[in-house]
Amino acid sequence: MTLYRFRYLSFLTDYGLDDGFVAACHGVAARIAPRAGLIDVTHLIPAGDIRRGAAVLAQTLPYLPPAVHVAVVDPGVGTARRGIAVEAGTSIFVGPDNGLLSWAVTAAGGAARAFSLTNRTLWLSQVVAATFHGRDIFMPVAAHLAADADLAASGTEIDARDLVTLPAPERIVRDSAAEGQVVTVDRFGNVQLAITAADAAQIGVKPGGSLLVQCAHLRLAVPYRDMFGAVEPGELVAFPDSAGLVSLAVNGGNAAQRLGLAPGARVLITAVP
Amino acid sequence: MTLYRFRYLSFLTDYGLDDGFVAACHGVAARIAPRAGLIDVTHLIPAGDIRRGAAVLAQTLPYLPPAVHVAVVDPGVGTARRGIAVEAGTSIFVGPDNGLLSWAVTAAGGAARAFSLTNRTLWLSQVVAATFHGRDIFMPVAAHLAADADLAASGTEIDARDLVTLPAPERIVRDSAAEGQVVTVDRFGNVQLAITAADAAQIGVKPGGSLLVQCAHLRLAVPYRDMFGAVEPGELVAFPDSAGLVSLAVNGGNAAQRLGLAPGARVLITAVP
Amino acid sequence: MTLYRFRYLSFLTDYGLDDGFVAACHGVAARIAPRAGLIDVTHLIPAGDIRRGAAVLAQTLPYLPPAVHVAVVDPGVGTARRGIAVEAGTSIFVGPDNGLLSWAVTAAGGAARAFSLTNRTLWLSQVVAATFHGRDIFMPVAAHLAADADLAASGTEIDARDLVTLPAPERIVRDSAAEGQVVTVDRFGNVQLAITAADAAQIGVKPGGSLLVQCAHLRLAVPYRDMFGAVEPGELVAFPDSAGLVSLAVNGGNAAQRLGLAPGARVLITAVP
Repeated sequence: MTLYRFRYLSFLTDYGLDDGFVAACHGVAARIAPRAGLIDVTHLIPAGDIRRGAAVLAQTLPYLPPAVHVAVVDPGVGTARRGIAVEAGTSIFVGPDNGLLSWAVTAAGGAARAFSLTNRTLWLSQVVAATFHGRDIFMPVAAHLAADADLAASGTEIDARDLVTLPAPERIVRDSAAEGQVVTVDRFGNVQLAITAADAAQIGVKPGGSLLVQCAHLRLAVPYRDMFGAVEPGELVAFPDSAGLVSLAVNGGNAAQRLGLAPGARVLITAVP
Repeated sequence: MTLYRFRYLSFLTDYGLDDGFVAACHGVAARIAPRAGLIDVTHLIPAGDIRRGAAVLAQTLPYLPPAVHVAVVDPGVGTARRGIAVEAGTSIFVGPDNGLLSWAVTAAGGAARAFSLTNRTLWLSQVVAATFHGRDIFMPVAAHLAADADLAASGTEIDARDLVTLPAPERIVRDSAAEGQVVTVDRFGNVQLAITAADAAQIGVKPGGSLLVQCAHLRLAVPYRDMFGAVEPGELVAFPDSAGLVSLAVNGGNAAQRLGLAPGARVLITAVP
Repeated sequence: MTLYRFRYLSFLTDYGLDDGFVAACHGVAARIAPRAGLIDVTHLIPAGDIRRGAAVLAQTLPYLPPAVHVAVVDPGVGTARRGIAVEAGTSIFVGPDNGLLSWAVTAAGGAARAFSLTNRTLWLSQVVAATFHGRDIFMPVAAHLAADADLAASGTEIDARDLVTLPAPERIVRDSAAEGQVVTVDRFGNVQLAITAADAAQIGVKPGGSLLVQCAHLRLAVPYRDMFGAVEPGELVAFPDSAGLVSLAVNGGNAAQRLGLAPGARVLITAVP
């Protein structure tokens, strides 16, 4: 039994779970690389929400085994955007060149090599549906890369500096204040900031204490706790989330709506003495 | 390590994902055929919607590996309807004899042999819940067929012509017009017609052009594009979907509601010059 | 290839499927015990609903293979509640000591040994997120127990009688009446009673007949059928469910709302002659 190059594939999309779309991709993987394990990251990224997909992939990545990671959130499917395979750290990332992979590539240590998926012999067949590259291109290429194909076989090498990237969320830490953009808002309306729990500690914010949240339209003291459940239902709270970032939540409610905060918004926090 | 007859099981139901129902079936499969891979097609078929289950299974099938395919959408569970195992192409299909399997069996090349699941020694136990044949009959029989049992061991052979079938969606292609029934409506309200992209090309419909959609209550010119995202939000569009069929969609909306079209409705399309 | 202690892990949570939380746990398991199969029981337990999680786990258990079962519904995460590993029957159960595991442990034959998860060398790392013990403690400990670690290595042995337990739903069967608490209400509003189909038979309730449902605010004759689909849409029905318990349902409706019944409520049933 020859060894695979990668024992695992991971798979993130906005396909939803109601149709057979995810299963068709699983089937394609099973036919090409039957001994590869396939870990579904999620298929419930809101349709076309590249930023949300990028955040979930990058934050899950540290806990996944080395793998060929396939991600498809692709509002530009059928347009001229490239399909890419990027080597970073101990993994390969496969998907559309629209920024979706960029935060995970950075989290994995940055792109070592990148290829445009131009080698059609690794695709599912010559007939490719205009709207289903996950099934017809990305998953079959990824499965070949997991099983037996060298990355260079996937297509034409491209300059990694030419890859489309999402701008990294801004994060500035000063002596007594930390400023960070909203990275993502989850389905509960929890607002994740590009400010780490370590940043918060550095500027003097202490669990059990409070922090002042300020942005263009907002100035508000919020308790800082170990977890969002530490406040009464309906109350605002800041807490270090499972990705190690400061998040704002309303226990049992929607903080993004309450605070009028969307991804990309800039938030300043300071310790309340 | 002896070889299995089938390396894979696939599994489609309307059980939903909130309960332990799907997991109980996975557990049953793991106990009987621990080395078989299990691909979940979907478990979110609307409750009792046999036609939708049949369409999703048949359209996913070409991308799945050879397998014992288990499908359970079974509003008649507990009545006299038979449980069946049908050999077609390189696969076996197991489920209720209510038409659910029929489109997939046709897609696999038609029924070669069919059996009524009367051999209780392959069932989970002598005590069978009236309402959970997926766990108690279909999955255990399928797992035995995947691992070591010959199809003939599943029960009494029956005439494949006696199997319940869903009528195939009608499809008539003339020189300048194609008429087809609505095959299925997905959760987004996209309306899939029994008219292939090749049919559309043959009657002169060109990507970038328009087609005229007509039915009893409707007469409407619709742009024909490579994908539904090619029109403005709120606009109607026709496009070749991932199953190779012409579908009608509203970008960001619900075409079935907008057009008043349900599965089975007859639609005529012609090219707009 | 050395043998694993357990070939399977099972996994039940209230994490939902929208984020990468479940996948992070899968990834952790894959890194520690790559050859263990992982069966997802469900991840859609309503947030914090320990009782619902306990019922789903206990009722799915009989159909799962011997495994290390991980369950996390943990409103007290970050508080002083212990993490535990409990041996019962041919399985090990890992999760918070809040009663979640207790019904499954009982169903497996009762706790033989129990340990508090104090051995940090089996945890994911020294840095543990206050709010994600599933990823950082429970799954890594479980994966080690599946692969190679003895249960005693998980921590400090504790007296199984000190484990937190949910009170078993009350169930009293007399000559002509059975009284039982509502065990759980599923997402359809079906009301599951702690009265078995065998109890119903014993007090003279016959399929095809009727039973009288009584509680503090209710007195109602309900048909008893093999399955809930046996009555007209909108009608109430009692039936033996797939766990062998008497359940109350409204065909196409919500019985819990209609009857005003919540988990824990006491219901008396008698046969209608």
